[in-house]
Amino acid sequence: MPNSVQSIEKLIEQLTKFPGVGRRSAARMADYILQAPKEEALALAGAIIKVKENVRQCKVCNNLSEAELCAVCNDLRRNKEIICVVENPQDIEAIEKAGNYTGAYHVLMGAISPLDGKGPQDLKIESLMSRLKNNHVKEIIIATDADTEGQITALYLTRALKPTGIKISRIGLGLPVGGNLEYSDPTTLAHALDSRKEL
Amino acid sequence: MPNSVQSIEKLIEQLTKFPGVGRRSAARMADYILQAPKEEALALAGAIIKVKENVRQCKVCNNLSEAELCAVCNDLRRNKEIICVVENPQDIEAIEKAGNYTGAYHVLMGAISPLDGKGPQDLKIESLMSRLKNNHVKEIIIATDADTEGQITALYLTRALKPTGIKISRIGLGLPVGGNLEYSDPTTLAHALDSRKEL
Repeated sequence: MPNSVQSIEKLIEQLTKFPGVGRRSAARMADYILQAPKEEALALAGAIIKVKENVRQCKVCNNLSEAELCAVCNDLRRNKEIICVVENPQDIEAIEKAGNYTGAYHVLMGAISPLDGKGPQDLKIESLMSRLKNNHVKEIIIATDADTEGQITALYLTRALKPTGIKISRIGLGLPVGGNLEYSDPTTLAHALDSRKEL
Repeated sequence: MPNSVQSIEKLIEQLTKFPGVGRRSAARMADYILQAPKEEALALAGAIIKVKENVRQCKVCNNLSEAELCAVCNDLRRNKEIICVVENPQDIEAIEKAGNYTGAYHVLMGAISPLDGKGPQDLKIESLMSRLKNNHVKEIIIATDADTEGQITALYLTRALKPTGIKISRIGLGLPVGGNLEYSDPTTLAHALDSRKEL
């Protein structure tokens, strides 16, 4: 049953569009907004507007940024000779958290997914190619997801990049740290065995 | 680790203020806002601003409303001779969903809670009293929660209202519909036995 107050109902409808937020959670969020001090609610509304107005794609690597170049591309200490190719800007945040990568990035803005009608032409592959022409890139690390779409994309990229002669690598697939061998799936185990290292 | 883009980090901070929303969920919500069409994100921001600007308390019963009087108080078909006293405006939504109540409401805006330093003077009890003087109210249904605070408040109200001579009732406490006797707590069972009805 919709809320009897129209503007509350509209807010609940908007909030249910968030991923994983159902009507009940949305109603609780609306209650929070109703009870919060006006400045706090307006700060939230302002933050939403600011993100939509200020955040754009880095013109080199498609990472999210408020400036023309993202924080990574703008950082002179980063090694621009290595490019790590990822599907989404969120992947960059994850790799940055790992803390051991000091190279540059390239965001494809998705992965090849025939079921969703998404082919290589829908990804930012052309701009990756032109980056390779202009710069002295020595290695490309393909860090697409380990799911079907990510693997297909990695395969496609490997074939497309081979003629450039640049060193291409794929991030390691195997047991996650803390992972339990008994409960890991066969494909992960097969990859883990393939990528074994001599000690 | 904070998001490297400042306005995204600010949005995530604002979103974590929602009840039950941690940093991970907030980051997912921020991703949704980043990927949504601009109009949709602005509609959400607009809905938040509108709720804070348009929604106020009904001047009779303290229910949430966009007008001076709420939808219930403004409805001539509602029986104004019965007042159902609740803790919060959300309780009205719940009772309206039940669909069998046709009287008016009064929102206390909370419950007596000594632990939180909330006494009777912090609740909208005075305005309830003045409603009783001016109107021909025949029954008051106390529908505060069945928790300690709600029960204390019900007790206080009963004592405060007794001198008016108006019929006072408390909503039935007992097994919830679909509830399992075996797993219900002793206090609920005691109430259920007390409020047994002859068939």
